[in-house]
Amino acid sequence: MNNLTHVIAAVSTPPGKGGVAIIRMSGSGAFEIADRVFFPISGKKFSECRPRMQIYGHIIEDGEKIDDVLATRFPAPSSYTGEDTVEIGCHGGILVTRTVLEALLRQGAMPATAGEFTRRAFINGRLTLTEAEAISDLLEAKSREQIRLSGDSARDKLSRRIEGIRKSLVGLMSSIYARIDYPDEDLGDFTDGELLSSLYNIKEDCKRLLSTYRTGRAISEGISTVICGKPNAGKSTLYNLLLGEDAAIVTDIPGTTRDVLRHSVPLGRVMLNIADTAGIRESENMDTVERIGVKKSREMIEKSELLFAIFDISRPFDEDDQLIIDAISSTAAPKIALLNKCDLDTRFDEESLRGFDVVIRISAKEGEADALKLLQDEVNRMFTDEKIVIGQDAIISSARQHATLTRCLDHIQAAIESLEIGFAQDAVSGDVERAIGAISELDGRSVSEEIVSDIFSKFCVGK
Amino acid sequence: MNNLTHVIAAVSTPPGKGGVAIIRMSGSGAFEIADRVFFPISGKKFSECRPRMQIYGHIIEDGEKIDDVLATRFPAPSSYTGEDTVEIGCHGGILVTRTVLEALLRQGAMPATAGEFTRRAFINGRLTLTEAEAISDLLEAKSREQIRLSGDSARDKLSRRIEGIRKSLVGLMSSIYARIDYPDEDLGDFTDGELLSSLYNIKEDCKRLLSTYRTGRAISEGISTVICGKPNAGKSTLYNLLLGEDAAIVTDIPGTTRDVLRHSVPLGRVMLNIADTAGIRESENMDTVERIGVKKSREMIEKSELLFAIFDISRPFDEDDQLIIDAISSTAAPKIALLNKCDLDTRFDEESLRGFDVVIRISAKEGEADALKLLQDEVNRMFTDEKIVIGQDAIISSARQHATLTRCLDHIQAAIESLEIGFAQDAVSGDVERAIGAISELDGRSVSEEIVSDIFSKFCVGK
Repeated sequence: MNNLTHVIAAVSTPPGKGGVAIIRMSGSGAFEIADRVFFPISGKKFSECRPRMQIYGHIIEDGEKIDDVLATRFPAPSSYTGEDTVEIGCHGGILVTRTVLEALLRQGAMPATAGEFTRRAFINGRLTLTEAEAISDLLEAKSREQIRLSGDSARDKLSRRIEGIRKSLVGLMSSIYARIDYPDEDLGDFTDGELLSSLYNIKEDCKRLLSTYRTGRAISEGISTVICGKPNAGKSTLYNLLLGEDAAIVTDIPGTTRDVLRHSVPLGRVMLNIADTAGIRESENMDTVERIGVKKSREMIEKSELLFAIFDISRPFDEDDQLIIDAISSTAAPKIALLNKCDLDTRFDEESLRGFDVVIRISAKEGEADALKLLQDEVNRMFTDEKIVIGQDAIISSARQHATLTRCLDHIQAAIESLEIGFAQDAVSGDVERAIGAISELDGRSVSEEIVSDIFSKFCVGK
Repeated sequence: MNNLTHVIAAVSTPPGKGGVAIIRMSGSGAFEIADRVFFPISGKKFSECRPRMQIYGHIIEDGEKIDDVLATRFPAPSSYTGEDTVEIGCHGGILVTRTVLEALLRQGAMPATAGEFTRRAFINGRLTLTEAEAISDLLEAKSREQIRLSGDSARDKLSRRIEGIRKSLVGLMSSIYARIDYPDEDLGDFTDGELLSSLYNIKEDCKRLLSTYRTGRAISEGISTVICGKPNAGKSTLYNLLLGEDAAIVTDIPGTTRDVLRHSVPLGRVMLNIADTAGIRESENMDTVERIGVKKSREMIEKSELLFAIFDISRPFDEDDQLIIDAISSTAAPKIALLNKCDLDTRFDEESLRGFDVVIRISAKEGEADALKLLQDEVNRMFTDEKIVIGQDAIISSARQHATLTRCLDHIQAAIESLEIGFAQDAVSGDVERAIGAISELDGRSVSEEIVSDIFSKFCVGK
């Protein structure tokens, strides 16, 4: 695939100032490069030091000491990448880290691109593609459930299920070929009926696995959620309620378009990707009648998978509330009405609330935690299959896995239809082969360079 | 000083998402805590694994695997803190890192406070105070010169000079005491004249060392700099020129007041702390006549140590330019006029520029690099002693060192004055003793808890 002969180097710890930073270097020749800038205080050559041992010494360039560091060498193949790897723990200042990295680059290392270490691990057979994806998910994880989903046991279950489907398809394929290649041999009674029945079983297997995507996606990729409500209805109350003590790990991530920020907030098992559009925000300061209609807000609402509408029931139901209801009425997404300020006198006509799947009352006095629990239960019920246990069941959690498995299913369906309208077994071999091709991509056995590039581009530099 | 018996733990790498994060744990009992959550894949107990070796294994809590990590144990005293220390390299996701840290905290470790690891290293005699300060400087370093200044050889030179002064004072002290304690012994001819002459020599030594602070401070703490100029004169041109390729390491650091941000920009050897005040910024959008007078801008200008005034000479000199000149005229700080757009037709009356120490012409066409070089040379000449070579000369670079040495000098001066007006040698012993006390504080031999706290509070958590 890529030129793997050069040595790559990058800072693997997050950018910014810290106590320590880790610089990684990988590739054949990494030890030689390290020997030119890293000098153990023991006087020994680094490349002759014991593997996996943290060695104290100095980074020296042009006779000038840059930093005291601890460096470790991991000879191939016992390293993350499977190549000769050096890890340097230096002081975590921004410039000092950069200066140490630059010393390595001047000695011949090349700057690593995003995900290049993990990509090399994949190419060298240290990781499967689903394992690499799991690492990417782990790095992004914002909930314990996401950490579980990217863990070994969840991954193992999925690998085994995929392998099971693949083996069944390969089994069918060899039976078909055996009949084509040796028509005169008596290879048993592999009738069209049996082939069809096997295909139906595999199809069901694929469908069951595909059905887990709803849950897996809600946990890992999250649900596009829009919060709406007239000014001062309590959008920020809801927001704070959702953030709770997890506020520290909620980060702004760029959405599909540059100007939309999404806040990812865990709610029970699932992740809510709450879109914050300028359009919706501005409506607070402007004439709601004009603003609620702005194109962007409409788009956000139309694209959303879940809608929270918040109403202040201490004030009478008015045309602004009606506008919110009108704006969201045409979408198919589940809608939850949140009635805020329930501890105050109600001056709100609840009869006006139409088209909501669930109505939840929030009262600051009576404990917002109860409302949150109710909301969490409802959302989790809507978006996940509670029977699915992460770590025990095979779960599809990425759009790539879903698309690949859907493709596999389509080829199986085509084979079934061909057989059902009377084609011979050999006529469906192409479909079965394509189904095998698709399922093989799931685990990276055969996968295009483009897909590999796409997966690793999601990593940060240094991983 | 503090309770050192508990185990502390913290994330030592910068906050945020990266490929790897390092969690550090230090204190007696750290290995036992690690044994409860970290399980080497070898099946061996971590506390029995070879010291300094990176051990691969799992972090497991309540039977659930949180992450695959590499952990290293550094038994006391061969660790950064001098205590039993564990370093865990986990995946650098925000939540996964937090989850691993929380597992350690639940097993009995306490969250480390800012600088607590380095503070323990100091208390356990692994670092002197100047070494600890040098680490703090290294973490903050934004120029190669700052890295050099915090390096071993620069620190050694300073330590030796300080030690030289201290030894001279201690020598004087014992001579004085010998004469007081054994007045009848013949202890040689240590006359008042000799004592005075020794004190003069030490005073000169202190003064020479103090004089390096101007350079050390310009390099390490930086020079408060204000850029002014009427709208569109080219402030951003100058800014970009100064940032150059170092833009990546320029960070916003909070100034003395919350609402002022300073950008630290290296210029040759020195660091410029460019203040960016709301007052000065707003003047671009508002009537300059009104704005230039705002209190805040005036304050910034008055507090500055260096002023850059930029003029667009393709436009005629006007009252806005005059306002800039008036605003800065009353300050004692060096003033540099920068004439921008020198490649265009000049319609500017340079005669109007009065009170500037230096005038530099900037022309985009003729190479801004030349102007920058000129500016750099002028500023370095103004604020540093070019004869001082970092790594070869002892240099004072922090306000604490300067204040302490000044105090030492004051006591020596007091001793000299007492002797000169005819006091006996024993009458000045108090002054000499106080001078010894002050110089001892420089290297942390005797230093108050408050000063130690202040130094370590500048560190980040995890260092």
